[in-house]
Amino acid sequence: MNSFGMKLQFSTFGESHGKAIGCILDGVPAGLKIDEIYIQSELDRRKPGKSEFETARKEADEVEILSGVFEGLSTGTPIAMIIFNTNQKSKDYTNIKDVFRPGHADFTYFHKYGLRDYRGGGRSSARETAARVAAGAIAKLMLMEMGIEVKSGICEVAGIKSEVYDYENAKNSIIYALDKNIEEAQKKEILKAKNNHDSVGGVSRVVVSGVPIGLGQPLYYKLDGVLADAMMGLNAVKAVEIGDGVLSARSLGSQNNDEIRLDGFKSNHAGGILGGISNGDDIILNVYFKPTPSIFKQQHTITTENEEVDFSLKGRHDPCVAIRGTVVCESMAALVVADMLLLNMGSNMQGVTNYYK
Amino acid sequence: MNSFGMKLQFSTFGESHGKAIGCILDGVPAGLKIDEIYIQSELDRRKPGKSEFETARKEADEVEILSGVFEGLSTGTPIAMIIFNTNQKSKDYTNIKDVFRPGHADFTYFHKYGLRDYRGGGRSSARETAARVAAGAIAKLMLMEMGIEVKSGICEVAGIKSEVYDYENAKNSIIYALDKNIEEAQKKEILKAKNNHDSVGGVSRVVVSGVPIGLGQPLYYKLDGVLADAMMGLNAVKAVEIGDGVLSARSLGSQNNDEIRLDGFKSNHAGGILGGISNGDDIILNVYFKPTPSIFKQQHTITTENEEVDFSLKGRHDPCVAIRGTVVCESMAALVVADMLLLNMGSNMQGVTNYYK
Amino acid sequence: MNSFGMKLQFSTFGESHGKAIGCILDGVPAGLKIDEIYIQSELDRRKPGKSEFETARKEADEVEILSGVFEGLSTGTPIAMIIFNTNQKSKDYTNIKDVFRPGHADFTYFHKYGLRDYRGGGRSSARETAARVAAGAIAKLMLMEMGIEVKSGICEVAGIKSEVYDYENAKNSIIYALDKNIEEAQKKEILKAKNNHDSVGGVSRVVVSGVPIGLGQPLYYKLDGVLADAMMGLNAVKAVEIGDGVLSARSLGSQNNDEIRLDGFKSNHAGGILGGISNGDDIILNVYFKPTPSIFKQQHTITTENEEVDFSLKGRHDPCVAIRGTVVCESMAALVVADMLLLNMGSNMQGVTNYYK
Amino acid sequence: MNSFGMKLQFSTFGESHGKAIGCILDGVPAGLKIDEIYIQSELDRRKPGKSEFETARKEADEVEILSGVFEGLSTGTPIAMIIFNTNQKSKDYTNIKDVFRPGHADFTYFHKYGLRDYRGGGRSSARETAARVAAGAIAKLMLMEMGIEVKSGICEVAGIKSEVYDYENAKNSIIYALDKNIEEAQKKEILKAKNNHDSVGGVSRVVVSGVPIGLGQPLYYKLDGVLADAMMGLNAVKAVEIGDGVLSARSLGSQNNDEIRLDGFKSNHAGGILGGISNGDDIILNVYFKPTPSIFKQQHTITTENEEVDFSLKGRHDPCVAIRGTVVCESMAALVVADMLLLNMGSNMQGVTNYYK
Repeated sequence: MNSFGMKLQFSTFGESHGKAIGCILDGVPAGLKIDEIYIQSELDRRKPGKSEFETARKEADEVEILSGVFEGLSTGTPIAMIIFNTNQKSKDYTNIKDVFRPGHADFTYFHKYGLRDYRGGGRSSARETAARVAAGAIAKLMLMEMGIEVKSGICEVAGIKSEVYDYENAKNSIIYALDKNIEEAQKKEILKAKNNHDSVGGVSRVVVSGVPIGLGQPLYYKLDGVLADAMMGLNAVKAVEIGDGVLSARSLGSQNNDEIRLDGFKSNHAGGILGGISNGDDIILNVYFKPTPSIFKQQHTITTENEEVDFSLKGRHDPCVAIRGTVVCESMAALVVADMLLLNMGSNMQGVTNYYK
Repeated sequence: MNSFGMKLQFSTFGESHGKAIGCILDGVPAGLKIDEIYIQSELDRRKPGKSEFETARKEADEVEILSGVFEGLSTGTPIAMIIFNTNQKSKDYTNIKDVFRPGHADFTYFHKYGLRDYRGGGRSSARETAARVAAGAIAKLMLMEMGIEVKSGICEVAGIKSEVYDYENAKNSIIYALDKNIEEAQKKEILKAKNNHDSVGGVSRVVVSGVPIGLGQPLYYKLDGVLADAMMGLNAVKAVEIGDGVLSARSLGSQNNDEIRLDGFKSNHAGGILGGISNGDDIILNVYFKPTPSIFKQQHTITTENEEVDFSLKGRHDPCVAIRGTVVCESMAALVVADMLLLNMGSNMQGVTNYYK
Repeated sequence: MNSFGMKLQFSTFGESHGKAIGCILDGVPAGLKIDEIYIQSELDRRKPGKSEFETARKEADEVEILSGVFEGLSTGTPIAMIIFNTNQKSKDYTNIKDVFRPGHADFTYFHKYGLRDYRGGGRSSARETAARVAAGAIAKLMLMEMGIEVKSGICEVAGIKSEVYDYENAKNSIIYALDKNIEEAQKKEILKAKNNHDSVGGVSRVVVSGVPIGLGQPLYYKLDGVLADAMMGLNAVKAVEIGDGVLSARSLGSQNNDEIRLDGFKSNHAGGILGGISNGDDIILNVYFKPTPSIFKQQHTITTENEEVDFSLKGRHDPCVAIRGTVVCESMAALVVADMLLLNMGSNMQGVTNYYK
Repeated sequence: MNSFGMKLQFSTFGESHGKAIGCILDGVPAGLKIDEIYIQSELDRRKPGKSEFETARKEADEVEILSGVFEGLSTGTPIAMIIFNTNQKSKDYTNIKDVFRPGHADFTYFHKYGLRDYRGGGRSSARETAARVAAGAIAKLMLMEMGIEVKSGICEVAGIKSEVYDYENAKNSIIYALDKNIEEAQKKEILKAKNNHDSVGGVSRVVVSGVPIGLGQPLYYKLDGVLADAMMGLNAVKAVEIGDGVLSARSLGSQNNDEIRLDGFKSNHAGGILGGISNGDDIILNVYFKPTPSIFKQQHTITTENEEVDFSLKGRHDPCVAIRGTVVCESMAALVVADMLLLNMGSNMQGVTNYYK
C-alpha cells in the first residue's frame, strides 16, 4: 500500500515531522551508473524555500544512499535512500492538533486509523514526495541510458494558460513556466493569492520522448492507466489528461484519429499511447492541481471532539502546489516508464530466446 | 497484467471474435446472495444493438456462472463467468488484416507482440468490457448489502453539456442522458456524426453514494489513484476528473476547500476523497471518452508490410462509445470501491481485535 | 489468492462437482507454438481411473482453449482453458454433507467461510490440479523451446525407497516408479493398503535440467522459496526438500559444499540452487505426500451441528495420492521456472540495452 | 522481489558491509503499542558474538525506528527501521574478491547481475535477517495482543535429535536447545566441527499456538505454502516440514488422519493446517539448515576470471547457522501468521457487515 510499480518497485516511508523520510527502490538492473550529484540536483529542484512563490519553510533535503550501490554501480539489489528531516523540531502544533483542516486529509486519516500524527500533516504531507523524486532520479538515469527523456513544466496557473510549451524556458524559470510570455502574469496571480492569504491551482504538463513502441501491459496495467494512477495519487491532483484529454471528447473521430505514414504519426492527439501501449510518439500528460488547501483565511470546521469551530491556519505554505508538484510528476512518469520498459521484456518468444542465447 | 484489484481481484480473458470471453472474480466474501438475473440485467445495459445510437452488431451477451456459487450463495472461492461469442463467425477480415487502423491498438499490439489477432480488434476490442460488467455486477450486489449505490449517466456528448444530473433520467434514457432537456440535442449530434461516417466523443459521470469514511489505502493504492487507473484503462478514455477536476485547478483555495460542520461537508468540490481516502460524501468522477476511432471516412495509414495506403473501414460501430462505456465505468467504480471496502478492514487494532473476538 | 506467479501468472477456478474447472494463464510470450495434443497428453497423465492404483472415478479431462491463441500461436494475451466436469451429477452426498471428514479441509473451509460446497470436497478437491497441469503443459512447451526439461517420478511409496532414479522407467510405469527393481514392492503396498480400506503416502522427485544460471529473484522471490510454496501448496504435501534436503542438516560443511571446477560443480548437494538462484546444475526437489485422507475405515469425527459421530466414508479414492500428484509437481515446477525465466530478464543493464537495441 | 507478505508486507534493504540494513513494515494496524525494548530484545537473541557456538564477529544490531510510530503507537503508516553496520570497515576482502566460495551465492549473483558486492557476501549475507527479526518482533507484538504465541528451538544438531520439545529450555539455552538431556552432546558436535575448521547442520522447530481457525488463503496463498516459502527462502535452509512432514509420507491414512472430537483434534499429525487453512491446533514446522558453507578447510573452486584455484577461507563464521537461524524462523512465522490474520478478515459477508456496522 506504500509501494508502487511491478518490476521496478519503490516503497516509501516517513512523515513530515518524523526523523526521516526515504524509500527503497527495488528492481534497478545491475550495472547502472548511479550519479549521486544528479540525484541531489533533482531533489534540489523540488525542495522548498527557493523563492517567494514557494513555502518559506526550508529543508536541506540531502539524500543519502544506504544500499544497493557498489563502486558507483547499482548491484541489482534494493537501493535504499534516506533524507533526514532537519526542520521538524521547533514547531508548535497546538493550533491544528485537534482540528480537521478543510481540504486536508486530517479528517479521513483520523477516521480510518483512529489516531493520527498531526505534526505537519504526518504521512499525508507532500513532504513524502521528496522520496519519490529520489527514486525518480534513478529511474531517469536508467531512461537516459536508453535514450528516453522526461521533462515537464507549468502550463497553467490560476486559469492563465501557456500558448507555447518551451521546456527550456521551464528549466530556467523559478515557477517552471513553459511560456515566457505569460510567466509574469502567472507569477502575479500567485503573489496576489498569497497576499490575500489564499492559494491558486495550476497544471503541470509532462512529456516523455524517445519511448520505444510497445511499453504498457494490457489490459490492466496499461501505460495510460498506470500513469493516471501515478498522477492522481499525488496530493492535490484532481484531474489527469493523456494527449488531447478533455478536448478529445469534444472532437470528431475524423479530427481525433492520428493518421499514419511511413515516417510516423501525422499528429499526436493520442498522447503517444494506443490501446494502453506506447506508439513511439511523445507521451503527453496534463496534471491538474487544486489550490493549496492550506490558506490563512478563517474557515469553518470541526474538531476531533466533534465541536464546530472557526479556524485560521498559521505557518508557511506553498501558494501554488503545482509548481513544485511538476517535479514530482516528472519523477512519477519516469518511474512508470522505467517499470514498463522492464515489464515489456518477454512480450514475445523471439525476445526471450534472443535474451538467453 | 490481465488482473485488477488487490483483495477483490478479477482477471479477464478473451478476444472479440474468439470462442468466448469471461472472467474470474476472486475474493468475494462467502455468503453473498448471487442474483443471476441482476447480473444479466447489467450485461443487457451494456450489450450492443439496442438502438440506432449504438453499433448494429448484435451479441446475446448471455453470462453463465461456472464456479464459486453454491445454492445461490458465494462460497468464498473464485467465481468464474463465461460469455460465449455468438456473432463471431461470418465476417471477412481481409479488409483490416494487414492494415493498422488509425486510432486503434493495431499498430501497438503488432509491434509489441510480433503478431496479432486482427479479428475485430482481438483482445483490444471493447468487447472485453462485458466481462468487467459481469464482475462489476457482483461487486454491486455486495455494495448494495452495505448500503452503497453506484450510478452513472452521460453528462456530455459532442461538447453539449448537461446542466442537471438526473440519474433517474439516465436509467430510462436510451443514451443514458443525465439531462432530459438536452438529450435530444445530444442524440442529434450522434446521428449527425453517424450519417457523416464520423463519430463523436462524450463524457460519463459516475457517482458512488453511501460510502463509509476511510476507504482507500494511502499512499500508493489511494482511492482516487485506483479509480483513475480503472477509468483511464478503459478503451477510448483520455481524461479523468475527481470532483471538480479541471475546474479545481482554476479556483482559489478559499473556493475549493470543503468546509466541515457537524452534519457533514458544506460542499463537495473534492468529490468525496481527501488524501486518497473516502470522506463519506458522494464520490464523483467524470470520464472523458474520445470519439470512436472506427469511422467510415477514408484515412491515411500504413500496412504491416510498411506500405502507405488510403483506407476505408467497413462494418458496424458505435458512433459514440461513451454511451455504452458509462455502464463499464459504473462496473469499474463498483469493483474499486468493493476492493477498498475489504482492504480497509484491519486498518486499526480495535477493528482487528473486535473481528476475532 | 487463487493466482500464482508474477510475470507468468495463472489463476484457477472451479470445484470438484461444479460445471467446470479451468484457468487463465497470463504472461505467455507471443509467438509460442501451442501444441494442443501435447497439453491433452499431459492431462491424460494426471487423469484418474487409469489403473487399480488410482481412484476408479473416471473423468475425460478434455481441455479446451478459449482464448489467447491465434492460428496456432500464443498472442501474448491470456490463455483461458476449460475442462468441463462430466462425472459430477449422479452422486449422493448425504453421507458427507454435514460431517467433517478427518484429514480433509471440510472443517477449516466451513469455519473460514461459514458455508461450503460439500460435493466431493468442492474447491479443496485435488480435482483443481487438472487446471494446473493444463497451465503447466504450456509452461513446459515454453521451456522446451529454451532447452529446459522438467521430469519426475515416484521415488518412495510407503517407506520403500528407490535406489536409482530412472526417469525413463517413470515415464512407462503406471505408478511413475523411478526404480524398476522396487516397483513391484511399491505396487504391492498400495494394493495392500487399498484392500485394507486404508491408504499410503509417497514421495515425488522432480528434476529440472538445462536451466540457465541466474533464475530466481532474491531475497523474497527466491527460486527455492517459490518452489517450496508451489509444492507445499499442493493437497496432501507435508514436506519439501531441495537437493540433499534433510540429509544436508546431518552432514558436515566439508561434505555438503559443492566444489567448483571449470567444467562445472563437482557434486550437486545444493540441488542446483545457491542463494535462491539457479547455478546451472539440475534443480532437484523431493515432495512428500501424506496418505490419502479418504479411507474407508470407521473414524471419529464431529458434524457441522457439533455432534460426535463415527463415520465411514464411501466412494472411490486414490489409495496413494502421490502417484498422480507427481504429474502436478512437474507442472508446478515448470510454471515456477518459466516465471523466473521471464522475471530474470532485466537483471542487468547490459541485458536491457541489448534487448532494446 | 525484496518484499514479503500481502496485507502485512515488509521490504528489506542492505548489505553485510554497507552503511546500514533495515526494512519497511507496511500494513501494521494503527493503535498497536510499539514496545521498542521488546524489539531490541528480539534482535539481541539473533545477534552474533554471544558465545563460542557462534561467529566471533560482533555487531551491536541496535535498531532505530524512523517512521510510522507516534506517541508509542503505530499510526497505520509504514514503520521503517534501520540498523547501522558498525563492524564493516576494517576487513580486507582481497582473499574472496575474485573467488566463488563453494556453497555460497557468489557464483550465482555474479552471473545473474554481472557484478557483485563481495564484502562479506553483500546482499546474500545472512546479516540481512536482522531486518526480518525487527519486522518479526512487531508482528509478534501484534500476535500477542490476539493471544497468539510463536516460539522455537533447536531440535537437532549434527544428526543428534531432541526427544522432548521444551521451549522453556530453549529460551535459556545458549544454543536454543529444546532438549536439556542432549544439549551437551549437541554443543560438543558444534565445537568439534569448529575445531576441525568445519561446520554442522541443524534443525529448528517452530510452534505457533493460539491461532484462530481459518487463517490461510486458498488455493495459492495457503498458510502452509507461504510458511514453506518463508522458511526455504532463508539462507542455508534445504527442507521444510509441516506437522509430521517426511514421516507422514511413511504412515498409513488411518494413522495420519487427526480424528475430531468436540474438544478438538485427537492428534496433530497435520501440524495445525488442513487444506492450507489453520484448524486451531498448534502450527508446527521443522526447518532444516545445511552446515555453514564458510569452512576453513581447503576447497576447490574457480575465480571470476575462470581460473581453477585451491581456496582457504579466513575470518569468523558460525559453526552452525541453525542456532541463530531459529530466531529468524520465528520471526518469519510471526510475519506470515500476522499477514494471514489480516487477510482473513473479509472471508465472509457476516464479518464484513459486522465490521462496518
